[in-house]
Amino acid sequence: MENMKRTATCGGLTSSDAGSEVVLNGWVHRLRDHGEITFINLRDRYGVTQVVVEPDSAESVRSRAAELKLEYCVAIRGTVRRRPDGMVNAEMPTGEVEVVAQEISILTRSETLPFMIDERSDAREDLRLQYRFLDLRSFSMQEKIRLRHDVAFRVREYLNSQHFYEIETPTLIRSTPEGARDFLVPSRVQPGKFYALPQSPQLYKQILMVSGFDRYFQIAHCFRDEDARGDRQIEHTQIDIEMSFVSRDDVFTLIEGMFGHVFKKTLDRQLPATFERISYDDAVNLYGTDKPDLRFGLEFVDFAEIAARSDFQVFKTILSEPAGTVKALRVPGGAEYSRKQIQELEEAAKTFGAKGLAWMKVTADGLDGGVARFFGALKAEVLSVTGAGVGDLILLVGDKWQTACFSLGAVRSKLGRDLKLIDQSEFRFAWIIDFPLFEWNSGENKWEAAHHMFTMPQERFIETMENDPGAVKGDLYDLVCNGYELASGSIRINDPELQKRIFNIVGFSPEEAERRFGFLLNAFRFGAPPHGGIAPGLDRLLMIMAGESSIREVIAFPKNTAGVSPMDDAPNFVDDKQLRELSIHVDAPAPEPSGR
Amino acid sequence: MENMKRTATCGGLTSSDAGSEVVLNGWVHRLRDHGEITFINLRDRYGVTQVVVEPDSAESVRSRAAELKLEYCVAIRGTVRRRPDGMVNAEMPTGEVEVVAQEISILTRSETLPFMIDERSDAREDLRLQYRFLDLRSFSMQEKIRLRHDVAFRVREYLNSQHFYEIETPTLIRSTPEGARDFLVPSRVQPGKFYALPQSPQLYKQILMVSGFDRYFQIAHCFRDEDARGDRQIEHTQIDIEMSFVSRDDVFTLIEGMFGHVFKKTLDRQLPATFERISYDDAVNLYGTDKPDLRFGLEFVDFAEIAARSDFQVFKTILSEPAGTVKALRVPGGAEYSRKQIQELEEAAKTFGAKGLAWMKVTADGLDGGVARFFGALKAEVLSVTGAGVGDLILLVGDKWQTACFSLGAVRSKLGRDLKLIDQSEFRFAWIIDFPLFEWNSGENKWEAAHHMFTMPQERFIETMENDPGAVKGDLYDLVCNGYELASGSIRINDPELQKRIFNIVGFSPEEAERRFGFLLNAFRFGAPPHGGIAPGLDRLLMIMAGESSIREVIAFPKNTAGVSPMDDAPNFVDDKQLRELSIHVDAPAPEPSGR
Repeated sequence: MENMKRTATCGGLTSSDAGSEVVLNGWVHRLRDHGEITFINLRDRYGVTQVVVEPDSAESVRSRAAELKLEYCVAIRGTVRRRPDGMVNAEMPTGEVEVVAQEISILTRSETLPFMIDERSDAREDLRLQYRFLDLRSFSMQEKIRLRHDVAFRVREYLNSQHFYEIETPTLIRSTPEGARDFLVPSRVQPGKFYALPQSPQLYKQILMVSGFDRYFQIAHCFRDEDARGDRQIEHTQIDIEMSFVSRDDVFTLIEGMFGHVFKKTLDRQLPATFERISYDDAVNLYGTDKPDLRFGLEFVDFAEIAARSDFQVFKTILSEPAGTVKALRVPGGAEYSRKQIQELEEAAKTFGAKGLAWMKVTADGLDGGVARFFGALKAEVLSVTGAGVGDLILLVGDKWQTACFSLGAVRSKLGRDLKLIDQSEFRFAWIIDFPLFEWNSGENKWEAAHHMFTMPQERFIETMENDPGAVKGDLYDLVCNGYELASGSIRINDPELQKRIFNIVGFSPEEAERRFGFLLNAFRFGAPPHGGIAPGLDRLLMIMAGESSIREVIAFPKNTAGVSPMDDAPNFVDDKQLRELSIHVDAPAPEPSGR
Repeated sequence: MENMKRTATCGGLTSSDAGSEVVLNGWVHRLRDHGEITFINLRDRYGVTQVVVEPDSAESVRSRAAELKLEYCVAIRGTVRRRPDGMVNAEMPTGEVEVVAQEISILTRSETLPFMIDERSDAREDLRLQYRFLDLRSFSMQEKIRLRHDVAFRVREYLNSQHFYEIETPTLIRSTPEGARDFLVPSRVQPGKFYALPQSPQLYKQILMVSGFDRYFQIAHCFRDEDARGDRQIEHTQIDIEMSFVSRDDVFTLIEGMFGHVFKKTLDRQLPATFERISYDDAVNLYGTDKPDLRFGLEFVDFAEIAARSDFQVFKTILSEPAGTVKALRVPGGAEYSRKQIQELEEAAKTFGAKGLAWMKVTADGLDGGVARFFGALKAEVLSVTGAGVGDLILLVGDKWQTACFSLGAVRSKLGRDLKLIDQSEFRFAWIIDFPLFEWNSGENKWEAAHHMFTMPQERFIETMENDPGAVKGDLYDLVCNGYELASGSIRINDPELQKRIFNIVGFSPEEAERRFGFLLNAFRFGAPPHGGIAPGLDRLLMIMAGESSIREVIAFPKNTAGVSPMDDAPNFVDDKQLRELSIHVDAPAPEPSGR
C-alpha cells in the first residue's frame, strides 16, 4: 500500500486545502448511495471526511465504491474541494469540504457488524464487551480513552515538575493479605510457594521512603480478588503517591495543585486553589455520609433538643439510650409529596438500618400530618431550627448516631437526584479529615484499624490511646468529589515502638506482624523518616470527569461484574501440562472445557 | 516535628545563603568527632551538607550530637555560614558552606548497618537485595532510579508530542502461551479456570489498531515464567508501541526521534538523526551475530574462495558441503599472541559450535604457524583479502554458514573486550533488517516463526512463500545498541487469508489457532488496518545508559536469578485457607514453612 499511504487524516482538511490531492486511510463510517452519486463518510481517529464518488468518476472507482460496506478499511485518493454553500455541514470540523474520489483501494473487508458503531448504547453491555474492538471504534469510547491518556500524562507532568520520581514496584510480591483477598501466582521453580499480585504498592512505597527517595509516585495497577460488586474491577489503576518529611497539609497542597493542573489542561476547567475541609463528624452530621455530594445542599440539622421536649415517645426513648440522636432534613416544597413518595424515601432510609422515617408538612395552618401532632407546642422552634416554611416537608430519623445519619443520608441522596438539585457539569472536591483511627468490630469483639495499621494517630491522642481507642482520631484523610471517594491517604507511623502499640490494640501478635509485614518492620529499624501519602483512583477519576456512572466506560478492556473478559474469555481452562509444571491441581472436578 | 520541618534540602545551600537560619531533614551520612568539634555530613535525596557542632554549642545540642550514629534520621536547625577559605570542598555542590547546629532532633534511630551505604559494591549482591532499602540509599542507586524516572518521562513526553495515546491493557488475561511459559493466576470464582499474566501486550495492541486508535504506546509490565538465566527477570518493563497505516520506515523514524529526544534530555547526548541499517545476512557475515557491537571494527572477510584453492583439506571438505563457508578475522598486532591466548580464543569459538579455530601469523618472513603452511602459495592473496600486515594474526573458522559466523563472532566479542577496543562512553545504535521469517526446527522437523506468527512477509516473497519458506524475509527488525538487542518489532499481518497461510506453514491447525488467538482473528474479520510496531526494553535501555552490566542494577526491587526477592522472601508459602478458597492444592509435599 506504499503508494496509497495517507497524506492527510480524516479530521484535518479545511477549505484552505481545496484543490490539493490527498490520500486518506480509514474506515467506511457511513455510506449513502444516491444512484448516480455515492457519499462515503470516511472515519479515522482524527475525524470524519465526506468522500464523493461522482457520476463521471472512472469505472474502476465506481465499481470499487459499489463493493464497499460499513467498516471496510480503505485508502482513498482524491481531490479536496469546497462544498457548495448550501451543503456545508457546520457540525463537522471538516464540514466545509469533501474529497472527490479518484482511486479507492480496499485494504481489508468487514463482516456484518453485531451492532452499529454509532449506536453502541443500544447494544447489551456484554455484547459490547465481547466485541470490544468494535465498541472502541465509537467516538464516545475513543474520546474517553483519549481523555484517560491525557489525564495520566498531565498527572505525570505535574508530579515531575514537583520533583517526584515515578518508581516501578514489583507485581510479583509476597502475599500479605489485608483488606481483600490476594490473587496468587504459583511458583513453578519452588513448588508449593506462591507470589501474590499487589493490592496496592503500600509496603513498597513506604520502603522507598525509608530508602530516602523523598517523593515517589506511580500510576500503578492494583489487584483485589473481591466478589463481584457493582462497579468494582478486579484490577484497577491508582495514582500512588508518597512523600517524606511532610504533614497532612503538604499532601493536600500537592493534590490540590495536581488536580488543578489536570482539570485545567484536560478539560479547561479551573478548580478552586484549595478544597474545603470537612471533619468526618461534620460530614456525617450534615450529610449522613463520609463522601458527601456537595453539589447540593439539604444539610441536616440536629433535632435532638426539640425531640426531647416533644410528646413523641419513640424519639424520647431513643434519646435516652447511649448515642441516641434525632436528625432533621427540610425538603423545600415537599409539602406536596404524596404518601407514596414519602414511602419511597422511607425505603431509602431503611437500607441503612433506620426503622422508619418520621415526617411532617408545613402548611399555612401549621405543622400537619405524620408526627406533626407531637410537636404542636414547639412549632416556632421546629420552624426556626429546620429553617422550614410553608410548603416544605420535614423528615426526621431517630436512632443511634451513625444509623440515624447514614439513613437520612440515603434519603438526601435520593432527593438530590429526584429534585434535580445537581449541576452535572460541576466538580465539587472536599477533604474529609479527622477520621476515627479504630473501628469496633462487634462480630469479632475487637478493635480494627479503620484504614490500615500503618496510619499515624493524631498527636494529641498518642499518649493515652489505649484508654479509649474509639476516641482516637487518625492522621488520615479522604478526598471526595461529587459523592465519590476519590482518594484515601494518611501520615504513616515511622516509629517502631508506636507501631507495636497499634498492633497490640488491634490484637495483632508480634509473630503475626513479623510474618506478614516483617520486611517493612525490618526496614523501619534503620532510620525511617516521617512520611505520608495518598492514592487517587484513576478509573473513578476518569469516570467522574467523563460524566459516566461506570468505570467500565473508561477502561479499554474491562472485566464484567463476574471478573470475566467476554472478548478473550479470560479466565479459562489451561493445558494440563501447564498445571503439571506448576505442581498444582484443581480440587473441584472441572466442567467440560468450552468450545472457545 | 512541625517546628523542625525542613526549610532547605541538603543539596541546595550555597554561600549566598550564608547567615540564614535553616532546618535540614535527612540521614547521618558521616560522623567525625574531633573531640571539641563534631562534623555531621547530613544526606537527603538532594545532596549532602556538612553540619558542625562547635565547642560553644548549647549542652543540649552537644549531648544530642553525641548520641548520633550513622543513618539516624534527624532534623537539624542551624545557621548557614561560609567555610573558611582553606576548608572549601570543591567536590561537593554544597562544599562552600556548612551549617552550625543550634538544635538537633533525632527523628528515628538506626541499628548497626549490614554494610556501609557508601561501600555497597563490597557487599554480596544477595545481602544488598535483602537490605534493598539500605542499598537504595546509595548515591549510585539513587542516581540510576532517578535516571529511570527521567527516561520514562521523556519517552512519554516524546510519544505524547507525536500524538500517541498511552492505553493500559489488562494484566489478568487469557493464557496464550507463546515463546515462554505463562504465569497463571487461579480464578476463585470459577474453579478450574485461570487467568494468565501477559508475556507482552502483543494481542491487545494489535486489537487497539483494529479499534482505530492509530498510535498506541504503553510502558508495560511483562511476565515470563522462564528458568533462571543470567540477566533475565521474570517481570520486566517494555516501551510497547504500535502504529496503523505505516511501513517499516515510519517505525524507524519514530524510534530514532524518540531515542534522540531521550538521550538529549536525560544525558545531554546527541544521537545521529538516523541509525544505520544492516541486513541480518550482513550482520552475521561481518560480525557473527545479529546484535553486533559496532563500537569497534574487527569485521570478518569471506575466506572461502582462497580456502578452496589452498592445500588445507579440512576447509576444502567443509566448502564442498551445503552451506559450508570459511570466515577470516584479522587481529591487529596479534602475531605476539601466545599459544595460550589463541587457545582461549578457540574456547570462545567452540561455545558456538566451531570444531576449532585455525590461525596464522604474519611475520616479516611471511605467513607463520598454525595453518600457514597450507597457504604458502597464496600469501599475497591472503594478505590482500584480510588486509593483514606484519605483526597481525589471522583467525579462521570453517563450518556451516551460521556456525562459522557465530563462532567467529564470539571470538570477535572477546577480542573487543581484551584489546580494549571499546569506547565505553559511546552509544552505537543500528537497525538489523531483512530477518528470515521462518526458522527450521530440526528437532521437531518443521518450520517455525522466527519472531512471531503475526509478522508480515516482505511483499516480494508473499506469492511463492510456501515453495521455500527458508528464503522468505520478514518485515521484521531489531534495534541493537552496543551489542545488545534493545528492541524487536515488525509489520503485522492484517489479512486473515495471509494469516491462515502462515499458520499452515508452521503447522498450526485452524482449531489450535482459534483456541489460542481466536479473539484476535475474530477482530481481524472487521476491517483490520495495516499496522506494525516495536517494543524497546526499558530495563536493558537503562542498563546501557547507566553503563551497568546487569539489569538488576536499574530496577528498584529486582528478583535474583532464582526468581526470588530476598527482601520480602517472595515467593513464599500461603495460608491453607487461601488455597482452599482457590480450589487448588499443591501436588508435591511442601517442605516445612520457613520461619519468615
